Amino acid sequence: MSDTVSVDADRLRADIETNSEFGAVDVAEGIGRTVLAGTTANKRARDYFVSQLREAGLSVSIDAVGNITGRFEPATADPDAAPVAAGSHLDSVPHGGIFDGPLGVYAAVEAVRAIQESDIEITRPIDVVCFTEEEGQRFSDGLLGSSVAVGDRSVDEALSLTSDSGVTLQEALTEIGYHGDGLIDPHSWDSWFELHIEQDTVLERKRIPVGVVTTITGITHCHVTIDGEANHAGATPMTERTDALTAAAEVILDVEECANTIVEESSESAVGTVGSLSVEPNATNVVPGRVTLGVDIRDVAYESMQTLVTATEDALTAIENTRGVQTAIDRPFDLEPTPMSDRLRQYVHDAGSTAGIATHDMHSGAAHDTMYIADVTDAVLLFAPSKNGISHNPREWTDWEDCAEATRVLAGAIARAAQE
Amino acid sequence: MSDTVSVDADRLRADIETNSEFGAVDVAEGIGRTVLAGTTANKRARDYFVSQLREAGLSVSIDAVGNITGRFEPATADPDAAPVAAGSHLDSVPHGGIFDGPLGVYAAVEAVRAIQESDIEITRPIDVVCFTEEEGQRFSDGLLGSSVAVGDRSVDEALSLTSDSGVTLQEALTEIGYHGDGLIDPHSWDSWFELHIEQDTVLERKRIPVGVVTTITGITHCHVTIDGEANHAGATPMTERTDALTAAAEVILDVEECANTIVEESSESAVGTVGSLSVEPNATNVVPGRVTLGVDIRDVAYESMQTLVTATEDALTAIENTRGVQTAIDRPFDLEPTPMSDRLRQYVHDAGSTAGIATHDMHSGAAHDTMYIADVTDAVLLFAPSKNGISHNPREWTDWEDCAEATRVLAGAIARAAQE
Repeated sequence: MSDTVSVDADRLRADIETNSEFGAVDVAEGIGRTVLAGTTANKRARDYFVSQLREAGLSVSIDAVGNITGRFEPATADPDAAPVAAGSHLDSVPHGGIFDGPLGVYAAVEAVRAIQESDIEITRPIDVVCFTEEEGQRFSDGLLGSSVAVGDRSVDEALSLTSDSGVTLQEALTEIGYHGDGLIDPHSWDSWFELHIEQDTVLERKRIPVGVVTTITGITHCHVTIDGEANHAGATPMTERTDALTAAAEVILDVEECANTIVEESSESAVGTVGSLSVEPNATNVVPGRVTLGVDIRDVAYESMQTLVTATEDALTAIENTRGVQTAIDRPFDLEPTPMSDRLRQYVHDAGSTAGIATHDMHSGAAHDTMYIADVTDAVLLFAPSKNGISHNPREWTDWEDCAEATRVLAGAIARAAQE
Repeated sequence: MSDTVSVDADRLRADIETNSEFGAVDVAEGIGRTVLAGTTANKRARDYFVSQLREAGLSVSIDAVGNITGRFEPATADPDAAPVAAGSHLDSVPHGGIFDGPLGVYAAVEAVRAIQESDIEITRPIDVVCFTEEEGQRFSDGLLGSSVAVGDRSVDEALSLTSDSGVTLQEALTEIGYHGDGLIDPHSWDSWFELHIEQDTVLERKRIPVGVVTTITGITHCHVTIDGEANHAGATPMTERTDALTAAAEVILDVEECANTIVEESSESAVGTVGSLSVEPNATNVVPGRVTLGVDIRDVAYESMQTLVTATEDALTAIENTRGVQTAIDRPFDLEPTPMSDRLRQYVHDAGSTAGIATHDMHSGAAHDTMYIADVTDAVLLFAPSKNGISHNPREWTDWEDCAEATRVLAGAIARAAQE
């Protein structure tokens, strides 16, 4: 088994702080950055990452969609052994925080440096990876680099994705010098580790520095349209209305009630959210003629998700029958829950024990690149605490000591995997 | 009592059709026009109106806010007698129909012409009136000329109202040659008659060509803000949410339920409508943090309106207590119900009987200039049927025969008032 690895908290902090300067935005509170894929800010972030990989002696490769890999392959490692991979992403949402993504990337870099400085003799190569456009703010809906890596989307399809201003991903990557060759191949990896900030308050409330994700919840989005009849709010009696918004109100409450029932009776992690809603014509003095709404449904159990979709459909049937509205529903997005590897989760818990750092099993309600990687190899997602659960915001914060402790656990688990 | 007056249906139709060409818009279905106050289209509509008044021998005056009056004062009339006034407006909403406003204006013109051609000897002058910006699409929230005429708003305040492009009403009226002197004075009128399209289907369904309004409903607008907490829809458990939209859904249904109860138990004409609603941040994967909504409350009984406002306030208190949201409500707009003159309503019914045309007592859920005029003198509002209740739309339609029958009744009632 592995000796303890000793990460350098200051070196980790310095990397994240340096990275926070790329695309920095001027804000009243917190530290913000805007690093969209393929922009100058993204080039600077990538350049610094590559320089740190090279400084640590890793060999760098860039694939066709801009995913970056730094390989650590010491003499003790079998070049033909399946590598252990770890990393995250460097892009951000507009006015995002400094930890979402960079923590996982630089924790992986620091883990390799710590292993290099330890007495541990690894037998597998270690790949430190940065995926392209996890946030999906410029070219895609997100998880772009990882979806291509596992074959869910073709390289050509990805490269021809176009930003609002008409630039293709290929053009943007070429412009910043990160349109490489070939494709990173997660199928060939022994294992994948991603450390990410939690973006909720579970760890903060429990005062535990490391979360070990058991399952990333599945996600379904339903897009619902409710057609009533727009009419003069004064001239149309209550008995002669087909009000799309009062009908929508019933659907909103039915979705919530169904989710609450599932939470009480079968699965605590189930969530059902009507997050978006628009009304036409949306004038105070006009009875609403049309409402469109977006429902977000997630759980670690796909069965609960189906129950919530059925409840939504039932609510629509009910308002058609009782209110005379017409409804339509489609489901543009449906990802089943993704269980994490039991083997890797055990490595993480063991690494926590060895380092004297508490770890806590929990699910992830948010999607991450690990969702795709877990489809093709053993994968695990680790969480560090998020102050007040705030994320995608300059007020996003994780204490440096928490960053360091989570990185210690990550490094221990990577070392273990690289010695198996 | 008066002899029967004989209106010329073709002449009325010709006026309304000619007027429909000013500001005409190209539409696939129906006949549309866009005639905003103080525009070139409005100038052309006013010029034609003035030419028709002059052709009928009326003396024309323009007041300081552009209200136009044509006075018919034959030798039989006492110049010092309080005049009978009738009319409506010539402005429209963008892409509006051709009857909303012009019917009432040209029915009043035709009524005078019919009286001129009859054997009736009137003892009071008759004023045919066009009010400025009833629709309120450019400078005001509507009922602009009538609100100034009755003293609810000062001339100076009205003239300094500014369009989105920065033009004042004074500048716009001066530009088109309709910034006159003095002010029309409804206090001095014996009576006021306005014929308008119904904008609902009551008359159409009852197959009655003339509605006689008993009361114009009062109108209250409530502006409501509900503050919850925006959070990640995946990472925030159901039990830890403060969802502003599910809270809003309860309010929407409570308002509807209260209105339905009033309709069943005490006042059929009560209506409560949540017509506008917006969600922040309005992303499917984010728990709604803030919802704002606009509530429109109307009835012929002010007591029912108060009950509906109280129900809205109670619903807000309930969601504060049960859901932990913060709420705020204000009431930027509150007009009490306006009863029409019993005397003038009787004149209208009698005129219908004399002409063999059915008339029907009904309330108006929509606001009209008559709301303001009724505050200072006897006033009555007449309705002509609207095909399918459609209005503010190029598909707005009233059959020419219905226009003519309503004008016959209007002319008879005006003749009666002008002989008393």
